[in-house]
Amino acid sequence: MVAVVGGDPCTEEEADFAEALARLLPERGLGVVTGGLGGVMEAACRGAREAGGLTVGILPGANPGAANPFVEVAVPTGMGELRNGLVVRAAEVVVAVGGEYGTLSEIALALKAGKPVIGWRTWNLDRRPQGAQSIIAVTSAEEAAEKVGQALTSDGVS
Amino acid sequence: MVAVVGGDPCTEEEADFAEALARLLPERGLGVVTGGLGGVMEAACRGAREAGGLTVGILPGANPGAANPFVEVAVPTGMGELRNGLVVRAAEVVVAVGGEYGTLSEIALALKAGKPVIGWRTWNLDRRPQGAQSIIAVTSAEEAAEKVGQALTSDGVS
Amino acid sequence: MVAVVGGDPCTEEEADFAEALARLLPERGLGVVTGGLGGVMEAACRGAREAGGLTVGILPGANPGAANPFVEVAVPTGMGELRNGLVVRAAEVVVAVGGEYGTLSEIALALKAGKPVIGWRTWNLDRRPQGAQSIIAVTSAEEAAEKVGQALTSDGVS
Amino acid sequence: MVAVVGGDPCTEEEADFAEALARLLPERGLGVVTGGLGGVMEAACRGAREAGGLTVGILPGANPGAANPFVEVAVPTGMGELRNGLVVRAAEVVVAVGGEYGTLSEIALALKAGKPVIGWRTWNLDRRPQGAQSIIAVTSAEEAAEKVGQALTSDGVS
Repeated sequence: MVAVVGGDPCTEEEADFAEALARLLPERGLGVVTGGLGGVMEAACRGAREAGGLTVGILPGANPGAANPFVEVAVPTGMGELRNGLVVRAAEVVVAVGGEYGTLSEIALALKAGKPVIGWRTWNLDRRPQGAQSIIAVTSAEEAAEKVGQALTSDGVS
Repeated sequence: MVAVVGGDPCTEEEADFAEALARLLPERGLGVVTGGLGGVMEAACRGAREAGGLTVGILPGANPGAANPFVEVAVPTGMGELRNGLVVRAAEVVVAVGGEYGTLSEIALALKAGKPVIGWRTWNLDRRPQGAQSIIAVTSAEEAAEKVGQALTSDGVS
Repeated sequence: MVAVVGGDPCTEEEADFAEALARLLPERGLGVVTGGLGGVMEAACRGAREAGGLTVGILPGANPGAANPFVEVAVPTGMGELRNGLVVRAAEVVVAVGGEYGTLSEIALALKAGKPVIGWRTWNLDRRPQGAQSIIAVTSAEEAAEKVGQALTSDGVS
Repeated sequence: MVAVVGGDPCTEEEADFAEALARLLPERGLGVVTGGLGGVMEAACRGAREAGGLTVGILPGANPGAANPFVEVAVPTGMGELRNGLVVRAAEVVVAVGGEYGTLSEIALALKAGKPVIGWRTWNLDRRPQGAQSIIAVTSAEEAAEKVGQALTSDGVS
């Protein structure tokens, strides 16, 4: 599973990026996990579904009906923003698209867990703990999909 | 989604029941959510998959590889037994098959949340809070599937 | 820490029991942890505070102001009923006083974790998993306090 | 409650800052909540205890014995890094001291929740969501304590 995280709402460019990236994942045998709501989350789910992929939405509330219409498997948690950590745990790689503080928390938790984080127009981190990865910046959906593939087939991503 | 909860390990009869019940759910448009491990959880996932249904495993650990082989969507939580509450939250109806203390916690949390609980050879509860449901006892997988259907189409299950 | 769990609201007898028990814990060097709300939880906090003891309330919501006035340390979780598992984790022994389904979930999670559960007019469990403890029934607050002390000083409580 | 978050291990300067800050909080009627382990967490607990204050440690593991010796109330969660969100929820203000990715996740979750974050030699965030606060940078423990006080007595902190 690949987590796609980002703002809700988001800009049109962010939605286009998230959808285009997610469309490239099913052919690589990858499903998409998001926080299940709108903005980047919805765009990613839409892209993955259009390409025949699996989409999982890990929701902050307890009501599965709050999921965007492209979530195939809704996991309502009732844990609020604590569910950000579950989105990260459910994925092997995280792609961050723009985003605000919620997205930053997901980036941080993923890097803390040693999971590769690929970023497009997202936070720039000014510190890099010794021995740890930082965000891998990409400039296109194709490059992001390629980096996802590399991250999953190698021990380390530079 | 229907949660199927029960012991790990479990008896052969319990596994047969869980598998037979789960086999009847996809034709009703229902997926199965479990705690993702062995015993009743594995039997239910096997039955649902054999009938072409969706299976979700909400795991206690952080490693998705711990899921039984019939889990299609693994959600590793790293929350230990606290994940029992997430299994219940992810379902509209809970079916309890035998089971020990973990199963009892899931039954209690489901009833607390006002969700119907259908039970086969499971705990007998000696108290029933005012205005609350208790476990709906069944004697066969067919009856359980029927009660699940009734629970999802009515406001209350008697 | 000793968890005192039970209904909210509760009967006058239950409140009396919880308060009397909690009053006996500080002299044994024990603090009280509860779910932080009313009923049995509030009575236990009141008793412990009156005897100079520490009280911790692990709340279902995100607002610390929801704690009863006898909670010294409020831990708002925003996790709803999932916080029941945290109440159990925070304690070495659990005392159950009456109670409904939420209390039953706490009893079950504690027994699952191998923690001693002492009960007064609470659920009777009709099954006992092999090798596991069941609820230790008591008839007075003094007996409950004594059993708590035994549980904390021995490897096993019969 | 004031959360003090930061690295484990940490530098001597960071420990000195955390301890000096925490020592100033009890006289303001404030307790300290941390993640309960070493480094900045331990230094903050030590400072608060030396000044007679309350210290709460919300631990990643299920074992209360993992808390540093200056934690008065240990809350073992068994939730791993998800407990970072509980540390933030338990506080009205967060002070970040240096820190790595775990600290960054706590900063992000606090800002997401609209809670003031005061920082000393910690992450610099290059984005600031519209209408949201960013980190309030301070240069001394005294200034940090003053900013904490301001944050708690005003609706907004500039």
